[in-house]
Amino acid sequence: MSLIASLSLADLAALLRGAPRRCVVTSHVRPDGDAIGSALALALALQKLGHPVVVLNEDGLPDALRFLPGGERVTRPSGAVDADIVFALDNATQPRLGDGVNAAIAGVPMLVNVDHHLSNTRYGHHHYIDSASPATGQIVAEWLEAAEVPLDAAIAENLYTAISTDTGSFQYSNTTPATYRWAARLIETGLDVGELNRKIYQSSPLRRVKLLGELLQVLDISADGRVASWFLTAEMAGRAGALPGDSEDMIDHIRGIDGVVVAAFFEELPDGKVRLSVRSKDARFDASALCGRFGGGGHRMAAGARLAGPVGEARQRVLSSIHEALIAAIPA
Amino acid sequence: MSLIASLSLADLAALLRGAPRRCVVTSHVRPDGDAIGSALALALALQKLGHPVVVLNEDGLPDALRFLPGGERVTRPSGAVDADIVFALDNATQPRLGDGVNAAIAGVPMLVNVDHHLSNTRYGHHHYIDSASPATGQIVAEWLEAAEVPLDAAIAENLYTAISTDTGSFQYSNTTPATYRWAARLIETGLDVGELNRKIYQSSPLRRVKLLGELLQVLDISADGRVASWFLTAEMAGRAGALPGDSEDMIDHIRGIDGVVVAAFFEELPDGKVRLSVRSKDARFDASALCGRFGGGGHRMAAGARLAGPVGEARQRVLSSIHEALIAAIPA
Repeated sequence: MSLIASLSLADLAALLRGAPRRCVVTSHVRPDGDAIGSALALALALQKLGHPVVVLNEDGLPDALRFLPGGERVTRPSGAVDADIVFALDNATQPRLGDGVNAAIAGVPMLVNVDHHLSNTRYGHHHYIDSASPATGQIVAEWLEAAEVPLDAAIAENLYTAISTDTGSFQYSNTTPATYRWAARLIETGLDVGELNRKIYQSSPLRRVKLLGELLQVLDISADGRVASWFLTAEMAGRAGALPGDSEDMIDHIRGIDGVVVAAFFEELPDGKVRLSVRSKDARFDASALCGRFGGGGHRMAAGARLAGPVGEARQRVLSSIHEALIAAIPA
Repeated sequence: MSLIASLSLADLAALLRGAPRRCVVTSHVRPDGDAIGSALALALALQKLGHPVVVLNEDGLPDALRFLPGGERVTRPSGAVDADIVFALDNATQPRLGDGVNAAIAGVPMLVNVDHHLSNTRYGHHHYIDSASPATGQIVAEWLEAAEVPLDAAIAENLYTAISTDTGSFQYSNTTPATYRWAARLIETGLDVGELNRKIYQSSPLRRVKLLGELLQVLDISADGRVASWFLTAEMAGRAGALPGDSEDMIDHIRGIDGVVVAAFFEELPDGKVRLSVRSKDARFDASALCGRFGGGGHRMAAGARLAGPVGEARQRVLSSIHEALIAAIPA
């Protein structure tokens, strides 16, 4: 392998096929299915090839991913790790590995950064970034194929979970023909696709279901039907027993309503500020510009901001701003 | 083609490649994505091959499927159709085509029944039943391939919708490696997979979202956390503006709660009776046996019954029966 920063898939494969190295596999803080699934798949493959391997994550294994084969290997950092090489997966910037992980791997002589985020900063000694790939799990699948590591059911279950979760069950625009073909190959290792998807998708904590009930009680639809919004106060979160992060993605429920062009979510934060999330369903309405008026930003279809509270006042200000911008962008 | 009742894929292909016939394509009442998607895909292919074609459905085109290419072709039956051949797709029994459709096609000399339902009664002059196929759309894809009809984007969008909806976005246990490989081939015709999935999945009528809010208000979890239930009265449905069928699949929200083994849904019907739906998440609890006690039936994991009302009394009787059966089946 040449000492260039940017690796090829063949270079990555050579790392797996080389002499045993003590490996660390890690991924980003608050890990999702792609972070954990791709890390565990790589760790299981490394072990098969005779490399001792440690799987580190700043926040450990989320409860919702405990079903993944090898999940018990995920440990939180505690002190320096004695290793030869670190693989950082699905992680765009080095700080996003977490302070504990960065401290633990500080003395390891080689850091390899493998990711699919467009925003990846190319940190580390070497990197392989494929931003056309919908999931780091799909990159790991190609990597193991290049290294001629046979897929087994345990590796496949991790890769399927990684790919499925990062493509919204094969629905997002990042999904490619290769994604579906990988799904076919992965389940051919003997996966029970119905059972696995139940584990991935049909397992919500009761508090999330209760939280949805709270939010639906305060659902507001504008007179013209084009703006849907709801809000979450500390009191509502308390009644549901919600934890931080439980409200993530819930805006999809109102974004999906027929006729809605803009969805807005207002969440009261512990510091009294209000977190605003805005989703647009029509590119003529720029969510990023709207949030920019309140000191935030993001993308055209999805953006956010932090506002001064209380929630009621923040809502009024933002909703009237949305209506104004919406009428200008897309006359009713 | 020989005059045997059971056709091969080659026989089906020969029907498409033969001399022009006046065709009717139809499917079941209250059509879903597979019924309409497979019917429109076949109709578009027949047209390409020079066959005049009429698409009939007893209930017409559902609003949620108006985006499908060719959707404007779907008509409700009105009087007898003058045609040479009827293709009945995704329809298990002849009555399920609907009275109007059956009257309209009564004079057509050949009825070909193409379906994936295990329960298909083999009605019609000829049939092709593949119960291992997750969707009639997947059968139509194989049929068009056998007939060497090139896929185009319009056909592919219908087939993708058929296959995706009948597999729960490639999640159900009926999904096979071939299903994913068909998805790859279909999107290779140039489909925008993100846009198409938004049309399929992110478009709920407001009344369905409101209905979910009503149901979540009456969510009941048993003391041991193993039984989740809710109910729908006519009053609640009225507040949400719900239409018949809107509550379908909503039981998935409570079946998916962590720790829940049995989910039950009680719906007040216009005749004052109560429709019970039961879902089991553990094969040791037999939903079918439970519903059998109330004159109903179904499968081990999903069953139903109709009970005398009012809802409150039906709930009490059924929930105590569920608890008793659950303790016997799976001691806490």
